[in-house]
Amino acid sequence: MEKLTIIKVGGKIVEEEQSLHQLLSGFSKIEGYKLLVHGGGRSATKLAERLGIESHMVNGRRITDKATLEVVTMVYGGLVNKNIVAGLQALGVNALGLTGTDLNIIRSEKRPVKDIDYGFVGDVKEVNGEMLSNLISLGIVPVLAPLTHDKQGNILNTNADTIAGETAKGLAQKFDVELVYCFEKKGVLMDENDDDSVIPVLRKADFEKLIAEKVIQGGMIPKLENAFEALDAGVKKVIITEASQIGKETGTTVMI
Amino acid sequence: MEKLTIIKVGGKIVEEEQSLHQLLSGFSKIEGYKLLVHGGGRSATKLAERLGIESHMVNGRRITDKATLEVVTMVYGGLVNKNIVAGLQALGVNALGLTGTDLNIIRSEKRPVKDIDYGFVGDVKEVNGEMLSNLISLGIVPVLAPLTHDKQGNILNTNADTIAGETAKGLAQKFDVELVYCFEKKGVLMDENDDDSVIPVLRKADFEKLIAEKVIQGGMIPKLENAFEALDAGVKKVIITEASQIGKETGTTVMI
Repeated sequence: MEKLTIIKVGGKIVEEEQSLHQLLSGFSKIEGYKLLVHGGGRSATKLAERLGIESHMVNGRRITDKATLEVVTMVYGGLVNKNIVAGLQALGVNALGLTGTDLNIIRSEKRPVKDIDYGFVGDVKEVNGEMLSNLISLGIVPVLAPLTHDKQGNILNTNADTIAGETAKGLAQKFDVELVYCFEKKGVLMDENDDDSVIPVLRKADFEKLIAEKVIQGGMIPKLENAFEALDAGVKKVIITEASQIGKETGTTVMI
Repeated sequence: MEKLTIIKVGGKIVEEEQSLHQLLSGFSKIEGYKLLVHGGGRSATKLAERLGIESHMVNGRRITDKATLEVVTMVYGGLVNKNIVAGLQALGVNALGLTGTDLNIIRSEKRPVKDIDYGFVGDVKEVNGEMLSNLISLGIVPVLAPLTHDKQGNILNTNADTIAGETAKGLAQKFDVELVYCFEKKGVLMDENDDDSVIPVLRKADFEKLIAEKVIQGGMIPKLENAFEALDAGVKKVIITEASQIGKETGTTVMI
């Protein structure tokens, strides 16, 4: 099977001109098949503020009411996505901006209300790996915004880390998938106050031990859980690194 | 060659839930290959107003400054486009939302400043008919937002009628193209006060005569000029009709 590199970048990187430019330049140099998943939460919050719409967050997740859904549809699907696509096209990358709605790439279901009503948030049910791999095999580079749909006419807001993980799993039968999560640190750190204490290789047994020891905590836990889930589903390699290190053999490699 | 129906609908139709629903239902019933081009000017004006950005229009064309470019990128490429795609997917149409930036579908050049500086407005230079016809032949139904790019990283605002006309011309060598412009009247009228005075067939000689007689005037003139230009470039048929009449043999058929 051929290699496919899936890069997930957060909002901060794609929303500032200089870091976006650096990211796109690094991404354009990756050899072989590739796919980009982006966030955009900060821009969404900023637009919501300008429109007088309050952003409600619970455990770092956005509550998506009707007005907020319009905002994220505009920001993720329009502003952020199309700016990335235009930037990549200028670098000779044949980028295609997609939401999960387009070509029914990612079907989701509105999250059931239990303790919290997340609103128009979609839990991924099915990734159209066949369609995505057809596009990729044509030399097309998909750029995925964190939006999905229920195939009943409703767009839903879905976490970008989840989109990246589910897409990686959905393509694991067609490609040797390397999934790269970019964030603001150089990798998973042994000491959160020491940016150079990157754990080069993290295995599942170590992960559980490091959680028990409270070395790994907070938002890194679901990120790593996603990583192990992807590996269990056949993804070859998961890397957690800084956006500026894309394409280099640095950061934390997560293995089963 | 196989038939391809290209439908262009204006902002008003796609921005109101009921007329959008009717349009998508009509569009979904069109047999064979098809493509939809949409506007969204009213929503853009509304969002700009809410953000305190003034909309400047000259001769019915929007002046696109930097702030307005962000608004139209969000509204055309995000909100309007993705709502249409989600609606079509729910009806079983394999829609793919595209701007001219995606897959380098439509390359344009920033309009040179003469009497008026239109700002970030693009004049179409090249339609990627090869890529579009590949997608269409795969059973994909492109939904085009009125945005293009200069392939140097800049998104540009382009009139939706122009997008429809240029796309029709760009595909005329690959398909028997029927181009349908939907607007608020039943067709080109002999008497603007009589909605039933539709001219069933309009030929070029009649067109020039009717302009001289001031029967045809205003915004209909550039629309018909686009139509004749498309026919000259190999498009088989141009129809001007009401959105509710899509798929029916009504309205004005424009012929050379």
